[in-house]
Amino acid sequence: MNHIEQVQKWLGDNNYDIAYISDFHNIRYYTGFNSDPVERILALFIFPDKDPFIFAPALEVEAVKQIGWKFPVYGYLDHEDPFALISDHIRKIAGNPIKWAIEKDNLTVIKQEALLKNFSQAQLTGNLSPFIALQRAIKTPEEIAELNEAGKWADFAFEVGFNALAQNRSEQDVAAIIEYELKKKGITHMSFDTIVQSGSNAADPHGAPKTDLIQPNMLTLFDLGTVYNGYISDASRTVAFGDIDDKQLDIYKVCLEAQLTAQDTAKPGMTAEELDKIARDVIEKAGYGKYFIHRLGHGMGQGEHEFPSIMEGNKMELEPGMCFSIEPGIYIPGFAGVRIEDCVHVTQNGVEPFTHTSKELKIIPVK
Amino acid sequence: MNHIEQVQKWLGDNNYDIAYISDFHNIRYYTGFNSDPVERILALFIFPDKDPFIFAPALEVEAVKQIGWKFPVYGYLDHEDPFALISDHIRKIAGNPIKWAIEKDNLTVIKQEALLKNFSQAQLTGNLSPFIALQRAIKTPEEIAELNEAGKWADFAFEVGFNALAQNRSEQDVAAIIEYELKKKGITHMSFDTIVQSGSNAADPHGAPKTDLIQPNMLTLFDLGTVYNGYISDASRTVAFGDIDDKQLDIYKVCLEAQLTAQDTAKPGMTAEELDKIARDVIEKAGYGKYFIHRLGHGMGQGEHEFPSIMEGNKMELEPGMCFSIEPGIYIPGFAGVRIEDCVHVTQNGVEPFTHTSKELKIIPVK
Repeated sequence: MNHIEQVQKWLGDNNYDIAYISDFHNIRYYTGFNSDPVERILALFIFPDKDPFIFAPALEVEAVKQIGWKFPVYGYLDHEDPFALISDHIRKIAGNPIKWAIEKDNLTVIKQEALLKNFSQAQLTGNLSPFIALQRAIKTPEEIAELNEAGKWADFAFEVGFNALAQNRSEQDVAAIIEYELKKKGITHMSFDTIVQSGSNAADPHGAPKTDLIQPNMLTLFDLGTVYNGYISDASRTVAFGDIDDKQLDIYKVCLEAQLTAQDTAKPGMTAEELDKIARDVIEKAGYGKYFIHRLGHGMGQGEHEFPSIMEGNKMELEPGMCFSIEPGIYIPGFAGVRIEDCVHVTQNGVEPFTHTSKELKIIPVK
Repeated sequence: MNHIEQVQKWLGDNNYDIAYISDFHNIRYYTGFNSDPVERILALFIFPDKDPFIFAPALEVEAVKQIGWKFPVYGYLDHEDPFALISDHIRKIAGNPIKWAIEKDNLTVIKQEALLKNFSQAQLTGNLSPFIALQRAIKTPEEIAELNEAGKWADFAFEVGFNALAQNRSEQDVAAIIEYELKKKGITHMSFDTIVQSGSNAADPHGAPKTDLIQPNMLTLFDLGTVYNGYISDASRTVAFGDIDDKQLDIYKVCLEAQLTAQDTAKPGMTAEELDKIARDVIEKAGYGKYFIHRLGHGMGQGEHEFPSIMEGNKMELEPGMCFSIEPGIYIPGFAGVRIEDCVHVTQNGVEPFTHTSKELKIIPVK
């Protein structure tokens, strides 16, 4: 069953007449059509036992056809009333649907009102948002392939960044060089602003690269990711720039052990909070527990805010196809910070990472 | 009256008891606090005759205080029910408000339901969205100052781009160099992906930079902008890379005349569609009307999707403080494209641009 057929089955099982999907990320997920309509209307309607259709600005209709959408696509011009047209199309296909499923996390009140104006008997009781979040959490082999490709570019970015790290460069310079070299290769979007943090600046996991020069003999943290065909990569590495002292070495080793232990142990059937605890226990046992101040990981795929969140309290069981980060960190204010991260996908008996840059401590010599 | 006082007056004039503002861009506009809460709850509540308050994730409460917010800010922890807490705070301040004004363009159904669960008698009839859009369309002198600063960085970006334009470089290379040089200066965000398009590629105003080498003796179009303290710049210049033929020269001259005529003529009291027509008439008279395939301009400020849209059918009168682009273009498929754009703010008797890079045809010699 493809993604749309899964929605059709869910609608049928729950006695809904129609699903209205308005989040353009979700429309991309179901149809492959990738466009942010901004203030215009882009919608996907799915029925339990009839063909779905896309409703789009007239300018976009050709583009929808070109991506190979096999079902109808209907357009509207700026001077037309989109919800009146939507109503006409739906009535021709499915009469007067009563039980609607909508994305409650995304649908705005203005669109809800427009819908109810045209379907006065509609009951907008079904909530697609949690269903779609769960569905999107299980990636297909095609999605895993895109994520692997995005991961390769993150590995390339680390190589660029490690080479760029040198005296008389700022963190911001190094971040700029990474993004520049990717852009020249045609990778035009990062998943988020590239993070390069050195010394005590790395102790703030919410901080940003600075413009003063990087000082030697400190740990330097890289956190970066690229976008590839709408799928992201996200990985962190921490390297030694010059000679680091024993305490820096110690937090690196502990963080690495936590990361490797979690990545080696993760498998289907384990809960998200169990995996968090496996990494956290390593860090706590070493005495750095209070410096690991965030969850172990987040779900990822088209973005960084997908299921499952790898944190205390989340009893969701890991399943094959789920993708998330494993990113323990130790942040000692005023001293140093380390974070080591791979994003992985769950396989039948473990997990596989999307990034392969070595996690053994790399020492970048000071020139 | 400051921005919040204007909302208070509007609430009083329209007999609303409370305003619930949930769009984080709007919260930034009213409070200066700039944070995307993603799936968490960030809200601003304004009353006609009582102090407003911010409701934020507990992690953000300190940051709200640090920006100088003089009114209460209340936090919540992840395990708490935010709307139950919001309800407690509101009831203490204003009892049981009945008539609510909400941002219908932004508020999601899930938040609307949470609100109604806690305020079962609430009537969510007021729509703040159009009021806020109009309010935000009139910029304050402080906002104009930020927009001027953002404009200076766009001028710097053109200088970098013109210098980078050379044989054996691709459009994508030149765009990457521009963003790299800005990033090194601490300007980390562009308003949109930098556009560099040469020759026939420039004939597609929705196209993107290519990775093949730029050929000489063609017009090359730059469209770019930077973000500065949350405010954007946006400008376009088209230059000759080497010798261009008479037809390229002609479309440049016509486009420039259209741009200058509109920018010199624009003033308060003129309608948006009148200004569009002034530029369009110049291009139509020269016989290129069918190649000017978009509106003359868009409103801008914190983003590119603000009021007023400078297009046929928009009878909104220009007022001092309004900011928008003036960007005529001529796009001849398979041949060449030209667009010349400044963003401007309306003054008492005309308009002033935020960018000052010369619009006279610049010829970049081929080395």
